[in-house]
Amino acid sequence: MEQLQYHEGRTEISQMGKAALIERITDGFRNRNISTVSSIGDDAAVLGEGSRKTLVTTQTLVEGVHFDMMYTPLKHLGYKAVAVAVSNIAAMNGTPRQVLVSVAVSNRYSVEALDELYAGIHLCCERYDIDLVGGETTTSRSGMVLTVTAVGEADSAAVTYRSGASLHDLLCVSGDLGSAYAGFLVLEREKVTYQANPNFQPDLSGLDYVLERYLKPEPRMDIVKVLAEQGIVPTSMTDVSAGLADSVLHICRASHCGCEVYEERLPIDYQTSRVCSEMSKNMMPVSCALNGGSDYELLFTVSQKDYDKVKTIEGIHIIGYITEEGMPAVMVTPQNTTIELRAQSFQGVEE
Amino acid sequence: MEQLQYHEGRTEISQMGKAALIERITDGFRNRNISTVSSIGDDAAVLGEGSRKTLVTTQTLVEGVHFDMMYTPLKHLGYKAVAVAVSNIAAMNGTPRQVLVSVAVSNRYSVEALDELYAGIHLCCERYDIDLVGGETTTSRSGMVLTVTAVGEADSAAVTYRSGASLHDLLCVSGDLGSAYAGFLVLEREKVTYQANPNFQPDLSGLDYVLERYLKPEPRMDIVKVLAEQGIVPTSMTDVSAGLADSVLHICRASHCGCEVYEERLPIDYQTSRVCSEMSKNMMPVSCALNGGSDYELLFTVSQKDYDKVKTIEGIHIIGYITEEGMPAVMVTPQNTTIELRAQSFQGVEE
Repeated sequence: MEQLQYHEGRTEISQMGKAALIERITDGFRNRNISTVSSIGDDAAVLGEGSRKTLVTTQTLVEGVHFDMMYTPLKHLGYKAVAVAVSNIAAMNGTPRQVLVSVAVSNRYSVEALDELYAGIHLCCERYDIDLVGGETTTSRSGMVLTVTAVGEADSAAVTYRSGASLHDLLCVSGDLGSAYAGFLVLEREKVTYQANPNFQPDLSGLDYVLERYLKPEPRMDIVKVLAEQGIVPTSMTDVSAGLADSVLHICRASHCGCEVYEERLPIDYQTSRVCSEMSKNMMPVSCALNGGSDYELLFTVSQKDYDKVKTIEGIHIIGYITEEGMPAVMVTPQNTTIELRAQSFQGVEE
Repeated sequence: MEQLQYHEGRTEISQMGKAALIERITDGFRNRNISTVSSIGDDAAVLGEGSRKTLVTTQTLVEGVHFDMMYTPLKHLGYKAVAVAVSNIAAMNGTPRQVLVSVAVSNRYSVEALDELYAGIHLCCERYDIDLVGGETTTSRSGMVLTVTAVGEADSAAVTYRSGASLHDLLCVSGDLGSAYAGFLVLEREKVTYQANPNFQPDLSGLDYVLERYLKPEPRMDIVKVLAEQGIVPTSMTDVSAGLADSVLHICRASHCGCEVYEERLPIDYQTSRVCSEMSKNMMPVSCALNGGSDYELLFTVSQKDYDKVKTIEGIHIIGYITEEGMPAVMVTPQNTTIELRAQSFQGVEE
């Protein structure tokens, strides 16, 4: 008998970067099946031998890590759990078809609580024409852990990887950035106030946009659709789940390139700016955009030839371009100084 | 601000049967995609428009519920997590191709612990020619939660559902039953002894079979293979994850039939019998077989015409036959009394 979690030469998981950890634990795995087209290292796995590919991805949300039950309505949580998995299918330029939902819950949760959770799951499935095809409900010792597997499909020629960006490609992002993190900051502030005085009535007026961005994100299937309608296949794509910087670096690493992002081009909503200025003198909106995370927008590159098409599409912003291999991924400020991008997602919005 | 897990009219999850709970929370979900062939209510979802079907299933293991770190080597745990998901693919008469593994771990676990876990995942993937194609490692607030999504494939004509059993079909089971639960009982006994006296050296000699059955189960891909070689497509199939009684009832409910199982036909290993008699005067080996669970054997029905083929296959036992709709699922004792089967899986081996 031994407690096997204790080892000599202990390395803390928190000491390792996520990419290094994944590389380490998956070292030695080799693909054997011809139906495995693409595996670890992208937003979803690409499977299938024919021209029609199956996309599969899985996303876990852990209570106390990815969500706080103090301010997360269960219906929103169910919706979000499906949405963030589906966002991975969108990031491959695919169409979601099915989800499987695994829920581990402690006895703190009632059947009525599960009703609420599944009402949110149902709503997101209806919204995006997705079938719930499996999963399970099991017991946990503490809190809730939700794992959603999303299955989608796409034609082989349309599947978009992180690795396809080329020199001079335009770097584009949908929607706006940092607003989900602004919503998170508001909710955390209200939680502290509530804990100090449970009779306190929060005033969240004028903040509905950032709150919804955090509590009930939408996968950008509308962007996938409009790109297809315009005949644009991005050269690379990923979603923005852990901040723009993290996503840009994913594309640059996978595509073996650098990039320049222009700070003044970053789409930031006025509510996001307002929350940041209220919260702290040191919290710049651009930091929320770069490192806030949970936006679930799409970051992608397109060939220069698609510039005329892309610039007219509502909700798509051209924020920079791809530079050659060996160059870093940098942000250029309005003062024309360059800052190298680093992935340093803020706490509370872990990918 | 409100803590949304509290509701009026609270119903405890533990008060509801698993089937009733699933029915309740999935009520209102309707399939919309033609690629969804079969969804909730079987061992895996069946997807795809062509004659080659994709099978997808997900299985969660929770620390303190499905495994105890006091006596579960992490390498075995990784192996088992993949094996139990793959068992669901076997239960559909399919071939596993890919897995995605999501791990949520607290800071109690080190990188070296994850190395061990993934060594086990790797071993099971190698053993069954499966590619690891995705997943993630996230933080948990306490303990470990493992969710494995398995993807497999099968020809449309070979896919075996729980719902296809017909009157007079033979009920068959692979391997032996109750041995995993016997292994669990031994480990729990040793744990108590160890906690009372940490210097105690356990004597587990002669118990290696039941221990391995619990700690490192094998999905019965060999049975799937031999059935295909013999040209047998079972009329219905499921795996034995929560005891034989539970699995028999799944087939009877889905196929709208009853069945008779003969107690003397139940395959029970001598180590299982030995452990049961040592453990308690009241613990009958047949109870372990019916309700012990974690066996991950295959339970299936075949047409009478396949009797001559099936009876010669090593490791397959004909334990009964299907009776008509309206009849109960019963076990017939050697004394010729009939006992109605009930699903009452023992604690610690929850499905």
